[in-house]
Amino acid sequence: MSFTHRLGEEQVSWTRKHLLGLEGVHRDEILTILDTAARFREVLERPVKKVPTLRGVTIVNLFFEPSTRTRMSFELAEKRLSADTLNFSASTSSVKKGETLRDTARNIEAMKVDIVVMRHSAPGAPHFLSQHIDASIINAGDGAHEHPTQALLDLFTMRERLGGLGGKRVTIVGDIRHSRVVRSNLWGLRALGAEVTLCGPSTLMPAEIDRLGVRVTTDLHEAIADTDVVNILRIQRERQDGCFLPSLREYTRLFGIDAERVAEMRPDTLIMHPGPINRGVELAPDVADGERSVILEQVTNGVAVRMAIIYLVSRIRAAERIEELDILAEVRP
Amino acid sequence: MSFTHRLGEEQVSWTRKHLLGLEGVHRDEILTILDTAARFREVLERPVKKVPTLRGVTIVNLFFEPSTRTRMSFELAEKRLSADTLNFSASTSSVKKGETLRDTARNIEAMKVDIVVMRHSAPGAPHFLSQHIDASIINAGDGAHEHPTQALLDLFTMRERLGGLGGKRVTIVGDIRHSRVVRSNLWGLRALGAEVTLCGPSTLMPAEIDRLGVRVTTDLHEAIADTDVVNILRIQRERQDGCFLPSLREYTRLFGIDAERVAEMRPDTLIMHPGPINRGVELAPDVADGERSVILEQVTNGVAVRMAIIYLVSRIRAAERIEELDILAEVRP
Amino acid sequence: MSFTHRLGEEQVSWTRKHLLGLEGVHRDEILTILDTAARFREVLERPVKKVPTLRGVTIVNLFFEPSTRTRMSFELAEKRLSADTLNFSASTSSVKKGETLRDTARNIEAMKVDIVVMRHSAPGAPHFLSQHIDASIINAGDGAHEHPTQALLDLFTMRERLGGLGGKRVTIVGDIRHSRVVRSNLWGLRALGAEVTLCGPSTLMPAEIDRLGVRVTTDLHEAIADTDVVNILRIQRERQDGCFLPSLREYTRLFGIDAERVAEMRPDTLIMHPGPINRGVELAPDVADGERSVILEQVTNGVAVRMAIIYLVSRIRAAERIEELDILAEVRP
Repeated sequence: MSFTHRLGEEQVSWTRKHLLGLEGVHRDEILTILDTAARFREVLERPVKKVPTLRGVTIVNLFFEPSTRTRMSFELAEKRLSADTLNFSASTSSVKKGETLRDTARNIEAMKVDIVVMRHSAPGAPHFLSQHIDASIINAGDGAHEHPTQALLDLFTMRERLGGLGGKRVTIVGDIRHSRVVRSNLWGLRALGAEVTLCGPSTLMPAEIDRLGVRVTTDLHEAIADTDVVNILRIQRERQDGCFLPSLREYTRLFGIDAERVAEMRPDTLIMHPGPINRGVELAPDVADGERSVILEQVTNGVAVRMAIIYLVSRIRAAERIEELDILAEVRP
Repeated sequence: MSFTHRLGEEQVSWTRKHLLGLEGVHRDEILTILDTAARFREVLERPVKKVPTLRGVTIVNLFFEPSTRTRMSFELAEKRLSADTLNFSASTSSVKKGETLRDTARNIEAMKVDIVVMRHSAPGAPHFLSQHIDASIINAGDGAHEHPTQALLDLFTMRERLGGLGGKRVTIVGDIRHSRVVRSNLWGLRALGAEVTLCGPSTLMPAEIDRLGVRVTTDLHEAIADTDVVNILRIQRERQDGCFLPSLREYTRLFGIDAERVAEMRPDTLIMHPGPINRGVELAPDVADGERSVILEQVTNGVAVRMAIIYLVSRIRAAERIEELDILAEVRP
Repeated sequence: MSFTHRLGEEQVSWTRKHLLGLEGVHRDEILTILDTAARFREVLERPVKKVPTLRGVTIVNLFFEPSTRTRMSFELAEKRLSADTLNFSASTSSVKKGETLRDTARNIEAMKVDIVVMRHSAPGAPHFLSQHIDASIINAGDGAHEHPTQALLDLFTMRERLGGLGGKRVTIVGDIRHSRVVRSNLWGLRALGAEVTLCGPSTLMPAEIDRLGVRVTTDLHEAIADTDVVNILRIQRERQDGCFLPSLREYTRLFGIDAERVAEMRPDTLIMHPGPINRGVELAPDVADGERSVILEQVTNGVAVRMAIIYLVSRIRAAERIEELDILAEVRP
């Protein structure tokens, strides 16, 4: 059930109906997404930023956690592909059991929805859904587990700026423990051959993390000294229980990136941040708006990457339909 | 101002500008809706589930009560007809007087909206609006009064499964007193010639209900023993004041449908539920997901039925416009 | 970078990329908007109220204050121009600093949005944004500062009814101090040559207001005796701190417009109100619904005026793009 399309000279493959995470996703698949995104990135520079590709396809944005940027980025991607979009926001409190989540999903499916973009506070919720419904599921963040489209837009931005990721050094600074962005980035960066360093307070570092083949350090100076990228995580105040972080001021003093820290970096080191920025906490305003920052490029690339994923997933759906028709044709005399 | 269109071989009639309820709606009108819905049901099986029929028509979904499924089902129906849709959600608390509701409606009308899909906690609110504005009103539930599109999707599902409704036996189990679904179902089922049995605790049974020509019983065993359909109502905890229902556990013991109850039914009895299900309260999970359950078919059919109603109502609007033009043509020399 | 298009016989000019307010907007520019709106007003009378003009253009409705009518009117205008629309609602509480507002705006811009329609409680917020992003900003109300599209729909309605505004007398009654509608109306009415009288309790009258070349009075009888228009402001209970207004009953007695007050007016005086009406407070129901009232016409005209502004602003964007291309063409050999 694989689908092959030509992209410039090379042939690329995509076989996934869902995008649940980057764990286990092959290097070639990631490159397919990035190459497809590059074509949509060009569309975004046109006066008419819209293609008719997904006309008649229905996409539901099913957000059980509040989100502004990710939801908007997905909705824009969907509309620019000419899909029909529906927004569904719900507090997690109304969905107490997996069973009820399954009922919600089955109902959506029964309405003949093609793709569900889903954010949920429970890790694995999109995986659970994908086993129970026929619609394609795209994970827009599940608890502290994965946020694959964020990682893909990070990869896209790095590849565009650095030419490629093989052998490049990427340092991620911040609350490693609670970050779904880190997990997805890790799988993607390693698949593309980058060397990853994780840096943050030891209380915000999961115990088993070094087993994943990354360098782990609590020394910011060492972590940023000779690296191609410094990706700075948002300190999510709502996820701190009080026991992990002594104080924001203390965090900023030890792990905040300001002009002084930038002076320790190589002159070509890129500054990244998944947004929204806590200005003056994990990142100083002048660095966020400075020359090395590619933060706003990340936002633009996010729309292109999401267009690419929706497009690839919907092509698989179309291919499956054709296969079904072929099977029917064989069965009939 | 009637409008006739051909449907297969037979000619059908539709003359209503609004769909406020099923009370007083003629058998032929209901059949017109169901036949039209059958055509849209086919559209939902296509890869491109969209028709250009209502391009340029504006529909406002005016929900004064929270709703997820019904709103989504309507929005999907509207988008698949290529209408432009706007969502307007308001808590009833902000609309204290009928006068203010009229002002809201007049404003919507002044914006040249064609169709208003409306849910309101006050019985009769859609009827009130229909007398004050030129837009078509479709009732998406008014208090405990009517919910005509839910009843129509129930009728559609039963007719598809049973071949027709004349002489069929339909049992509705649950909180009869507070249910708009029951009222609309009653009018529709009787118009199509079905025999209806209502079953529930006597405290949840309105006093005058047996005058409507239905069988009323508090004995579940008797009610489900020999019937074509068991339609199980949702126990709406938010509508129970404490005085009607002793406890949920007690309700489940006496009126819940589980495998044991199903064993008392005929092997071809259909299990229906308007959703969302309180699993383990009015309906056991294995019955909800079992072979006799047509609950998810109801959801799919709901989109088709709503497409049909919107389509029929908008055709009358178009016919009225043409008639106006004809009158103008006659007046002019 | 001016853009000229033919409108009937006369040539009109429009050079603005943003519409932040009516202060400083020239008479000819206002007439361009009103003339363009007149063409869209005709579109709204057609069976298909939609034009393909803005296909592929993305508009974000960025509402930091709750709004139903204005948001709906803008969304309808956008959809009738075939633009893609996204709604973004946020309580002001989540946006505490201008810096964060700038970050929000920059993110929206990075997503390649063309036009941002913005409501904010802080006066000047749209002006601030317009200096930081490339998207066009349309002010949908900023604190007590300006609400230009409301004023323009008022002007449109008056011009249609009175034939023109030169030398006409317009009286505005109510809470002058807290009204953004008054400020925008003042600039517009004076640009078109109308004579303005402001009338309200002295506690609700800003100290410097008579410097703006308007007549100010606390005597309602005198204010409405010989005027072409009485525009009645909504008493915004939520904006009264208790110190400005003794009581609503007192306000109604002294400044409410009822049949008795209407009897003091000339028979051709128009009654206007920006809505929503507090019936029985600033305006009696029979006057609101009476023959002189043009309140619902204002609502209809509001959609046409907003279509006009979005259209004009987007034409400037297109012209800028062409100019950029020309510059590039000159640079290249």
